[in-house]
Amino acid sequence: MSMNGAESLVRSLLASKVEVCFTNPGTSEMHFVAALDHVEGMRCVLALHENVATGAADGYYRMKGKPACTLLHLGPGLANGLSNLHNAKKAGSGIVNIVGEHAASHVALEAPLYSDIEGIARPMSAWVHTSHSAEDVGADAARAVQAACLAPGQIATLILPSDTAWNEGGKVAKAREVPARERVHDSQIERAAELLTGPDSLLLLGQGALTEANLERAGRISAKTGCQLLSEWGNAVLERGAGRVRIERVPYPIDIALKVLAPFKKIVMLGAKEPIGFFAYPGKPARLTQAGTELLTLADRSMDLTAAMKALCAATDAQDTAPAHVADAHLPDVPEGPMGPDTFAPILARAIPKDAIVVDESITTGRAFFPATAGAAPHVWINNLGGSIGYSMPNAIGAAIACPDRKVLALTGDGSAMYAPQALWTMAREDLDICVVIWANRSYRILRGELADVGVQNPGPRAMDMLSLDRPSIDFAAQARSMGVEAEAVTEVGAFTAALERGIAHKGPYLVEAIF
Amino acid sequence: MSMNGAESLVRSLLASKVEVCFTNPGTSEMHFVAALDHVEGMRCVLALHENVATGAADGYYRMKGKPACTLLHLGPGLANGLSNLHNAKKAGSGIVNIVGEHAASHVALEAPLYSDIEGIARPMSAWVHTSHSAEDVGADAARAVQAACLAPGQIATLILPSDTAWNEGGKVAKAREVPARERVHDSQIERAAELLTGPDSLLLLGQGALTEANLERAGRISAKTGCQLLSEWGNAVLERGAGRVRIERVPYPIDIALKVLAPFKKIVMLGAKEPIGFFAYPGKPARLTQAGTELLTLADRSMDLTAAMKALCAATDAQDTAPAHVADAHLPDVPEGPMGPDTFAPILARAIPKDAIVVDESITTGRAFFPATAGAAPHVWINNLGGSIGYSMPNAIGAAIACPDRKVLALTGDGSAMYAPQALWTMAREDLDICVVIWANRSYRILRGELADVGVQNPGPRAMDMLSLDRPSIDFAAQARSMGVEAEAVTEVGAFTAALERGIAHKGPYLVEAIF
Repeated sequence: MSMNGAESLVRSLLASKVEVCFTNPGTSEMHFVAALDHVEGMRCVLALHENVATGAADGYYRMKGKPACTLLHLGPGLANGLSNLHNAKKAGSGIVNIVGEHAASHVALEAPLYSDIEGIARPMSAWVHTSHSAEDVGADAARAVQAACLAPGQIATLILPSDTAWNEGGKVAKAREVPARERVHDSQIERAAELLTGPDSLLLLGQGALTEANLERAGRISAKTGCQLLSEWGNAVLERGAGRVRIERVPYPIDIALKVLAPFKKIVMLGAKEPIGFFAYPGKPARLTQAGTELLTLADRSMDLTAAMKALCAATDAQDTAPAHVADAHLPDVPEGPMGPDTFAPILARAIPKDAIVVDESITTGRAFFPATAGAAPHVWINNLGGSIGYSMPNAIGAAIACPDRKVLALTGDGSAMYAPQALWTMAREDLDICVVIWANRSYRILRGELADVGVQNPGPRAMDMLSLDRPSIDFAAQARSMGVEAEAVTEVGAFTAALERGIAHKGPYLVEAIF
Repeated sequence: MSMNGAESLVRSLLASKVEVCFTNPGTSEMHFVAALDHVEGMRCVLALHENVATGAADGYYRMKGKPACTLLHLGPGLANGLSNLHNAKKAGSGIVNIVGEHAASHVALEAPLYSDIEGIARPMSAWVHTSHSAEDVGADAARAVQAACLAPGQIATLILPSDTAWNEGGKVAKAREVPARERVHDSQIERAAELLTGPDSLLLLGQGALTEANLERAGRISAKTGCQLLSEWGNAVLERGAGRVRIERVPYPIDIALKVLAPFKKIVMLGAKEPIGFFAYPGKPARLTQAGTELLTLADRSMDLTAAMKALCAATDAQDTAPAHVADAHLPDVPEGPMGPDTFAPILARAIPKDAIVVDESITTGRAFFPATAGAAPHVWINNLGGSIGYSMPNAIGAAIACPDRKVLALTGDGSAMYAPQALWTMAREDLDICVVIWANRSYRILRGELADVGVQNPGPRAMDMLSLDRPSIDFAAQARSMGVEAEAVTEVGAFTAALERGIAHKGPYLVEAIF
């Protein structure tokens, strides 16, 4: 069968089980777009900004465990999607970026849209390649998917000069094998089992160790050995809720984190890295553990963490011990009081439906949410691991496409929401079952704390003005409706509770703006 | 006087005449923000997305002729602003980016927000440097401004580890001298004068040659020699309107461009590059001039173009010749007919007020605007030279801050507008005198033409769906109001005319959505 490079690309992606494409295409990508019409099986989702596309691919990977592709227009299109690629990289999400490029003859002429695409790709990509000819495109795509699937998941960027897309000679490539994850050595498991004794020992879990089954194993180990359990400050995917072993995170605020970690003399890390401060602060340590603490990296997140958890469970002789820290179905009461973090937390805990996916970018407002929702109906909790704001609404799109039967809750601060408002349009277009909640405190509240933490005393009005979003205030509900999403704004607790219930009961996208 | 690195940075920027900062700061930039409170003279403008900040700095440079700075949060903040830096680079705009970085100790730990900032900066920057200590920051800032001022204007990126900002020892640096622009050799001028004879010779003008005075010189040369005049397909800044020498651009659609350029056997380029296709197309040439055409680059855009125009005028003995192509004050009639490019063009020509700055991103809708507005009241016309959409509203912010006494008109397609809607909020916050007009054809209309030009025949529904913005349609007026900007949507010609008049008469930001 004769076909051009673009068609061989689509067919090769499909052969490697890449079945969703998040895109904002341009001229150089038109042959790929045209190929969609004669090849069945690729779901193509239009985004009005590339950071929505890359963020959606991140969310898709987290829930589906396999990569989607993005289709981006030249260097600037890739550049627009970089910050959510940064977040995806930090989360260990696998993504295949397809980036159009000028035909070789045109690159040499420095056309207006010419840029160094490989240079733009490299800081966020583990794998970067530019196709040389239509004949190569299919095989290059298979290698890109293989690279994206490498544990824990990587960013792979394939650059496609337009002549390699439109020339004939495309060949469909078969999927390439992905190497199995490395296993932890028995000697390491034994060493870890020795360290985990008593309440001054900590089992610190990260990505891949936070499934319901692995957390149950962690609960047994804790019950048997007396060790404590924590996860990193943020998790790519965490299964939690009533009946599951509950785990707290290392807190974000540095002084609290230091206090929480102070008691531990022995820390075993499984899928997690050594705890460090999110930022450096004058006069405060970068490493959050005490000097002299024994740290053992049992397995990094690219290894077979389930096998490691099973082996550790056996080595501590905990298999038949009832797990500790199982969350009961307790739902906290809603206290009397005004709109704010303390009232939002229990309302949220009561509202989270079974099997929901919570994509959390609540920043300061959400610091009370995690403990309060431990006993909510079983659900998945997703954090941003890269710290670049504007991840939650795009990520929710990908999660909703990966799991069409589950309710997605996107919780976001107002500052973060303004980083990717275009996501709402894609939610409406694809009729995704997402309830967005905007915590509208009308400031970059987190920075007010950070100012103090970096040693700025008594900031003046010009400094404070750079942290304020209330001049003018933004009407998020109107903004959502302008893009076809049903929305309401609420200013008091009863109305918020009712609005959240409506949003969750509604099938399709819905936005609740909580003004406080 | 003892001060920290951040304060020495602000004071050194001011010493180098950098007086405006477009920013979205984060933790690592808090000392810079704090310094604003005890240093007078730096106007700090908050943007809710970094591409608004970088695009504003571009517009500011174009109208002010000197750089503003941006203040961006680490690698992801810089990444978010890259695509408008790409546009600025292509336009030859000078910008000083200040990008926060983790303290050195924290970089080594690969903190969540760690990324390769220099790697992210390099594709769009002519100058990149990371400060080593608080003592160096002031001198580094002076070098950054010098680099940004190098003709024609460059992107300079200074990376500031947070400890170099908070440590004491900052020193204020004096401004560094910017080398004068290179002059064109007399022999070249003579060669150019020889080539410019008769209607098969073309004087192709680019950036710096498009001031009112230089265009008048071009008009004299044309009258004297019979040469034709054209500018590049887009111009960084063009002074035009009734009473000024009028110049057409090389058209964007490749077949029309080839036809327009076909007659010329001799082309003298001054501030312009050889005409090439915006994209490569199968079976069509990359270079738009005929084989055998004699091409002379008289001066690239970094040289002293005013001196070159004067010398060329003298060498052709045209100083006393009355200029050809002077635009008369003719305003075309508005034809009967529905809303569309043909009715918009004359309405716009009649509405443009004297001294207005038109930032044009009208794409397909605007192809008829340029000839129709040649006789409008004298104004400045600004194009996007990098082709990355979402430039016009951010650019308009910078132009309005550079020229507070002039009306700015930002004309944008709907697809482009959705790339940087956050710009509206900054317009409201700063009460900028900008009238935004959105051409809402509810599609990426340009790509429908591009599909055919790259050889895709009969695109099917899945392809066409990727080019459509009407599912759902976007209510741009409501979106603008949600960010504090007065707005109205219109669907017929009379209403559009009245709305545009209201928008222009209104002091402050106003948005007109033209639905057609």
